[in-house]
Amino acid sequence: MCRWAAYLGDEVFLEDIVTAPCHSLIAQSHHALEAKTPTNGDGFGVAWYGARPEPGLYRDILPAWSDPNLKSLCRQIRSRLFLAHVRASTGGATSRANCHPFAFGRWSFMHNGQIGGFEKIRRRLEASIADDLYDLMEGTTDSELLFLMMLQEGLDEDPQGAAERATARAVLAAQEAGIQSAIRLTAAFSDGEALHAIRYATDAFAPTLYTAQVCGAGRCLVSEPFDREGPNWQPIPPASFVTMTRERVTIRPFQPGTQPAAERELVAS
Amino acid sequence: MCRWAAYLGDEVFLEDIVTAPCHSLIAQSHHALEAKTPTNGDGFGVAWYGARPEPGLYRDILPAWSDPNLKSLCRQIRSRLFLAHVRASTGGATSRANCHPFAFGRWSFMHNGQIGGFEKIRRRLEASIADDLYDLMEGTTDSELLFLMMLQEGLDEDPQGAAERATARAVLAAQEAGIQSAIRLTAAFSDGEALHAIRYATDAFAPTLYTAQVCGAGRCLVSEPFDREGPNWQPIPPASFVTMTRERVTIRPFQPGTQPAAERELVAS
Amino acid sequence: MCRWAAYLGDEVFLEDIVTAPCHSLIAQSHHALEAKTPTNGDGFGVAWYGARPEPGLYRDILPAWSDPNLKSLCRQIRSRLFLAHVRASTGGATSRANCHPFAFGRWSFMHNGQIGGFEKIRRRLEASIADDLYDLMEGTTDSELLFLMMLQEGLDEDPQGAAERATARAVLAAQEAGIQSAIRLTAAFSDGEALHAIRYATDAFAPTLYTAQVCGAGRCLVSEPFDREGPNWQPIPPASFVTMTRERVTIRPFQPGTQPAAERELVAS
Amino acid sequence: MCRWAAYLGDEVFLEDIVTAPCHSLIAQSHHALEAKTPTNGDGFGVAWYGARPEPGLYRDILPAWSDPNLKSLCRQIRSRLFLAHVRASTGGATSRANCHPFAFGRWSFMHNGQIGGFEKIRRRLEASIADDLYDLMEGTTDSELLFLMMLQEGLDEDPQGAAERATARAVLAAQEAGIQSAIRLTAAFSDGEALHAIRYATDAFAPTLYTAQVCGAGRCLVSEPFDREGPNWQPIPPASFVTMTRERVTIRPFQPGTQPAAERELVAS
Repeated sequence: MCRWAAYLGDEVFLEDIVTAPCHSLIAQSHHALEAKTPTNGDGFGVAWYGARPEPGLYRDILPAWSDPNLKSLCRQIRSRLFLAHVRASTGGATSRANCHPFAFGRWSFMHNGQIGGFEKIRRRLEASIADDLYDLMEGTTDSELLFLMMLQEGLDEDPQGAAERATARAVLAAQEAGIQSAIRLTAAFSDGEALHAIRYATDAFAPTLYTAQVCGAGRCLVSEPFDREGPNWQPIPPASFVTMTRERVTIRPFQPGTQPAAERELVAS
Repeated sequence: MCRWAAYLGDEVFLEDIVTAPCHSLIAQSHHALEAKTPTNGDGFGVAWYGARPEPGLYRDILPAWSDPNLKSLCRQIRSRLFLAHVRASTGGATSRANCHPFAFGRWSFMHNGQIGGFEKIRRRLEASIADDLYDLMEGTTDSELLFLMMLQEGLDEDPQGAAERATARAVLAAQEAGIQSAIRLTAAFSDGEALHAIRYATDAFAPTLYTAQVCGAGRCLVSEPFDREGPNWQPIPPASFVTMTRERVTIRPFQPGTQPAAERELVAS
Repeated sequence: MCRWAAYLGDEVFLEDIVTAPCHSLIAQSHHALEAKTPTNGDGFGVAWYGARPEPGLYRDILPAWSDPNLKSLCRQIRSRLFLAHVRASTGGATSRANCHPFAFGRWSFMHNGQIGGFEKIRRRLEASIADDLYDLMEGTTDSELLFLMMLQEGLDEDPQGAAERATARAVLAAQEAGIQSAIRLTAAFSDGEALHAIRYATDAFAPTLYTAQVCGAGRCLVSEPFDREGPNWQPIPPASFVTMTRERVTIRPFQPGTQPAAERELVAS
Repeated sequence: MCRWAAYLGDEVFLEDIVTAPCHSLIAQSHHALEAKTPTNGDGFGVAWYGARPEPGLYRDILPAWSDPNLKSLCRQIRSRLFLAHVRASTGGATSRANCHPFAFGRWSFMHNGQIGGFEKIRRRLEASIADDLYDLMEGTTDSELLFLMMLQEGLDEDPQGAAERATARAVLAAQEAGIQSAIRLTAAFSDGEALHAIRYATDAFAPTLYTAQVCGAGRCLVSEPFDREGPNWQPIPPASFVTMTRERVTIRPFQPGTQPAAERELVAS
């Protein structure tokens, strides 16, 4: 189980969300030890949007808590939109190419969860990737592959549809391969304008996803609340597709293999 | 709290003690998460004795559990005497120079615990180091400094006396600086022939130290047992100085600032 | 252009060939600066055979000259058969998974040169790999892929034939893709018993390959001589397949796409 | 010999100076191979001033040319004042703590050159550092020590005087120790407002230092020109202390052990 946090709102220093001593992603990662949850020491990454259409990307294979570069960068860089991830490998190698977020063009993507039985369908799914996207593949994770499938399915034109079609491809491949393990995912991705997130599983155990207003005029999506007493974290229901802009947060049903349903407005920031 | 294991006996593959999936130092390090003890993800190191009088040394700043090099080396290298350490930083930087074991000439040294209030007496202690040893200092840990003080106090001629005098220097410096925090240490060190260990604290909370016969004709000293059901782990009492050779294990009182007392034989291997 | 050295003979310390201050692979790598040849600072690796049928493997992405672990390991480890490689990336990422040697089961493999236009045929070649080997692929280099193709072509039963057939597959794929760039390679590989090497190119510029007796009862194959005055380095002609055992060195024509020709004995060690 | 570049002027992306394919610090570092000068592959660092009084700091031990994080950061971050450094170790360990720039509070510092015979006077110089600065020392380089001595000599109030007094301390210590080797240095440092540089040696071989207007309304100080045809690089004479602000560049004689002389204006930007 990895952990991640994504932010959209007024410009804040990354450290407010990522590395602050209390109530940040890293602090949570440490604190989590007490809570009997696994350590997230198998690499980390940050993608942030600033002066360019495409995000900046900083990833390394050290535990996030011991990297002075991360601390300094997060203390220095301000952004209105960023994704941060700490990794707990579920088996794959610890390499920079396997660290989240992944980025391509304007898009960034990060993920918690896994495609059950991935090793049995990895090759089939990779073979289904278009040539130009295949060449972008640097690592060996199910997460990167899911991102590439989403790009292929038209992330630019239809983020939710692309995510549903990509997920449906994975679900179908798993079914055809007779895999019993579920697909479970909580993912966040952005084109530098809107921030999208998915909470989904093919069984009853979708990884958690929460949102809250933070740092004044901003909003976070997180895989787990940073704290119990702080912001008023609202859980996102399973099988949801979240889209956050500066103006609003919408939550729609996430239905791989079906057409998107009517949208439902959750909160206005 | 770091964790370590030291082995002396018939040649075994390092992996039997360091990286095996069950009942090894790394396995313990993982399992320890369940036991509410901290993760040891701030670097690791192995010093082993083989074809040369001085030990081989492999240290890195990754978590030990994710380093394929460590796994391959431990699977390949056999040794009759080695020290292995996984680090949980108590504040110092994560750098190779701060990873245990430390080595100089024939000697290797590793440590769990800390000199309370070290930052207030670091400079005083460093100033007390002889010139030729001062030049060997690569990192900023209390552990490396304690090792250098032990070398200065005559580790070659009188291992226990040198360890007691070095510890006494640290105790005295802490007293003179009015430091309330205790000095607590469980250390192991070797010259390639005998394996020595200390369990000591200036208060009632000396870090634990255990020994057991393992892998047939060998014996381990460990900061914590690898498992509950496996070997018959014997705790070493506080204020002890252990010396293991192929023939015997002796435990003497460890009394910094006093003369070594009569020895007491524990077990014959 | 990478550089490599392989050794077979009486047990020697790796440092005699890999890291010694003069006349070693690393020393050459430094010295090469004067000779206007590129730096090999994009990672390194060593595979050595010892107590187990499969080799030990140590690879990292630092420049070899600044890694104290490599120095200590090479000083400590003795082997009768090993491969060592320093990498100068021709474009691929600097990651451990892209560092040579590659290892699978008993086999190790390293390579200097490149498949011209590889990016245009990478996918086609990857698609031709058998499922079980495909899962072994960790990096993105032409070298690892060539190794997997050789395994698929039956390296265990017929090393030269497998190497020829794998090379022929790459040559054919390049022809079919209309690639003008040549395939050039100097590779070494071993199953822990014999040491094999290839010198080959589809044009007139096969990377160099030399052999010499070294360290008394041993013999090296190298991509370039370590020195001008030292051992009596014999160049291996282009389009050659070399097989070294303790008893003899044989050089046969290397003819991808054709049948192996009569062998020709070069030297008896 | 390390290489470095410092920039002051209108905000530019770091990549324009640090990582651009042509005419940048990294490009020069590659190109330098042709020019028979050593590779700078022993780590790198960037300190940049942005939204806070203190600089951001990113340092790592990889060769700069192979670090995708550096490339992304330099592509994303804009700054009006920054220091960038690629390191060629003259013997010290390759560790992050030994990589330039060094930073403390508002100050950043980087250095090319060396204190001849430093190992013989290192301890004496370290002993002369005030307690609070001593605790900041993380590495083992002459460069970091020189920076700490400058801080102790009053960098905040009198940058040139502090630099001269610190240099004089090193010169005196070398004299008293009977060291024949010269002290040679080209250093740059900043408090986030002005950019200072020194070119100095106790013999006739002060490392080079150049300045030029670049990127429109900006100016660089560099240890070597990036190119021959590009900006109109002006050499700074030996024994000079340069101070750049947005308004002007002044060059004064740099005279360790004497009083600062009358200033001489070079150019108005």
